[in-house]
Amino acid sequence: MRLATLRDGTRDGRLAVVRRDGQAVAEAGAAAPTLQAALDRWDEVAPRLALLAADLDAGRLPAHEVSPFDPRAVHAPLPRAYEWIDGSAYLTHVRLVRRARGAEPPPTLTTDPLLYQGGSGVLLGPTDPIPLGDPAWGLDFEGEVAVITGDVPLGTRAESALPRVRLLCLANDVSLRNLIPAELAKGFGFFQSKPATAFSPFAVTPDELGPAWRDGRVHLRLTVRLNGAVVGDLEAGPEMHFSFADLLAHAARTRALTAGTLLGSGTVSNEDPARGVSCLAERRARELIELGAPRTPFLKAGDRVEIAMAGPDGRDLFGAIDQVVTA
Amino acid sequence: MRLATLRDGTRDGRLAVVRRDGQAVAEAGAAAPTLQAALDRWDEVAPRLALLAADLDAGRLPAHEVSPFDPRAVHAPLPRAYEWIDGSAYLTHVRLVRRARGAEPPPTLTTDPLLYQGGSGVLLGPTDPIPLGDPAWGLDFEGEVAVITGDVPLGTRAESALPRVRLLCLANDVSLRNLIPAELAKGFGFFQSKPATAFSPFAVTPDELGPAWRDGRVHLRLTVRLNGAVVGDLEAGPEMHFSFADLLAHAARTRALTAGTLLGSGTVSNEDPARGVSCLAERRARELIELGAPRTPFLKAGDRVEIAMAGPDGRDLFGAIDQVVTA
Repeated sequence: MRLATLRDGTRDGRLAVVRRDGQAVAEAGAAAPTLQAALDRWDEVAPRLALLAADLDAGRLPAHEVSPFDPRAVHAPLPRAYEWIDGSAYLTHVRLVRRARGAEPPPTLTTDPLLYQGGSGVLLGPTDPIPLGDPAWGLDFEGEVAVITGDVPLGTRAESALPRVRLLCLANDVSLRNLIPAELAKGFGFFQSKPATAFSPFAVTPDELGPAWRDGRVHLRLTVRLNGAVVGDLEAGPEMHFSFADLLAHAARTRALTAGTLLGSGTVSNEDPARGVSCLAERRARELIELGAPRTPFLKAGDRVEIAMAGPDGRDLFGAIDQVVTA
Repeated sequence: MRLATLRDGTRDGRLAVVRRDGQAVAEAGAAAPTLQAALDRWDEVAPRLALLAADLDAGRLPAHEVSPFDPRAVHAPLPRAYEWIDGSAYLTHVRLVRRARGAEPPPTLTTDPLLYQGGSGVLLGPTDPIPLGDPAWGLDFEGEVAVITGDVPLGTRAESALPRVRLLCLANDVSLRNLIPAELAKGFGFFQSKPATAFSPFAVTPDELGPAWRDGRVHLRLTVRLNGAVVGDLEAGPEMHFSFADLLAHAARTRALTAGTLLGSGTVSNEDPARGVSCLAERRARELIELGAPRTPFLKAGDRVEIAMAGPDGRDLFGAIDQVVTA
């Protein structure tokens, strides 16, 4: 089952199910007005949404209940969320970007997950423009996989964390690279350096991934384009050092998480440079290491970033994040 | 006007207005079912809530619409919120706790506000127990003042930030001191070291503070008790180096904030040791500096923490945070 949130002028939009071909949607209506409402009582609502999706796929819904899917007409699945927690589970990314800014990876890099708490009150839809702000801030994208959880009790362990995953989606964790060193030096983590994050059109149940969802990882390829050219075609599975189970257990060690919590993998990153990148910082880091200086500029007004992932059957699984930078 | 959120078995509770004497409440009902709903369309809802409060104060409501106020029957004003952003605007606190853990305050201490993004999906009510977890984690409280905002547009400047403040309340920013050094050393800020935060029973409109709300600061005394003994009686106004206007502008510099964002002052702290403390870490820091070692232990099971503030007329303005530590 794949879900989307239609824009309707309200803060939370209207929940819809997505047809198997991704070309049409049907509003969830009485089952749950919004995705948060569905997550709040998932066990009751999910079967009703599944029936609606089956009717939509089989062409059993009346024509007036079916609308063509328009990526510009959807919000992020959760336009505002109670938490956005972002990991950094691909260690190649951590090593490269820290090396580029002259910072050491923490000594616990391989044993203790890195997570930060991000802002979640204003999230961007898949085609929302990325505000440039001051070009000196060093605007960058980060292609990620994310999960949306149900309630996660305090102290949940990795072994029992994965049944808490309700949905998966993609994220563009927009970053202001040149604000990061000074901000992290203050000791309190990211704040201004992490503006609003964007999410894919569809949030999908784990069964849509088939065997590609295993070991708490998404074993599929993330494709990232910049101005139409592929800059990254990355394996999201094997090099995710900490699984979503590990990240959830880390996040819930000292507090409970509420239904609708968004948890990101961190920038998908592969050790093999031939796979490319899902953020410019890594390409710049490789240039710095190999050539002595970065050559790739950060994003400028007019640049277009696309992030998508094909499912096991070749379908565009999550729809595309497709954003243009605006001054 | 003072507002509270009554427990009713739902995730968001039911919004109520509080009588002037703090002894009774009336449900907001049709005006707005929850505080978040009220904040979402504040300009329309606030006048209706004010009329209801006036009727309650004047004894004009039918008896069945008025209930006695019971601090155990309320949630935090927002039981779950879209953002909890916490500052550290009292520099005495920053200097003392950093000195105690052998860390330097950042060189920009007086010019660049410290803020961190906290978890906001599960917030504690004013009388909810504080889970002890592992006693070795070093459980501590932090008494704070907080504001609840309306929508704050991207790039809002300090000069225009204060009209975005809708309500004020108190917070207990529960902290796990012994997890902080290792967590901050990883570079991503607080996560496990900041479990769920608790909030006062009432969230109040700024006019309830009269002239004590000025310059974006609360010029009143925060009283903190540990096991019944006053450990802090602190001036919250003059030593708040960055005002709420400064903190809001800092938070909104690269992203918008949604209605219902909670923003905390950081631990209220005075340079004069005779004023006491609103967290144990400061007392331990002073002991370390003066005696060579901390003597005050962190919280243990059974300890009771009370945080309250008298208004300009001597009334208990926000109701009391009154929590017991449970194993």
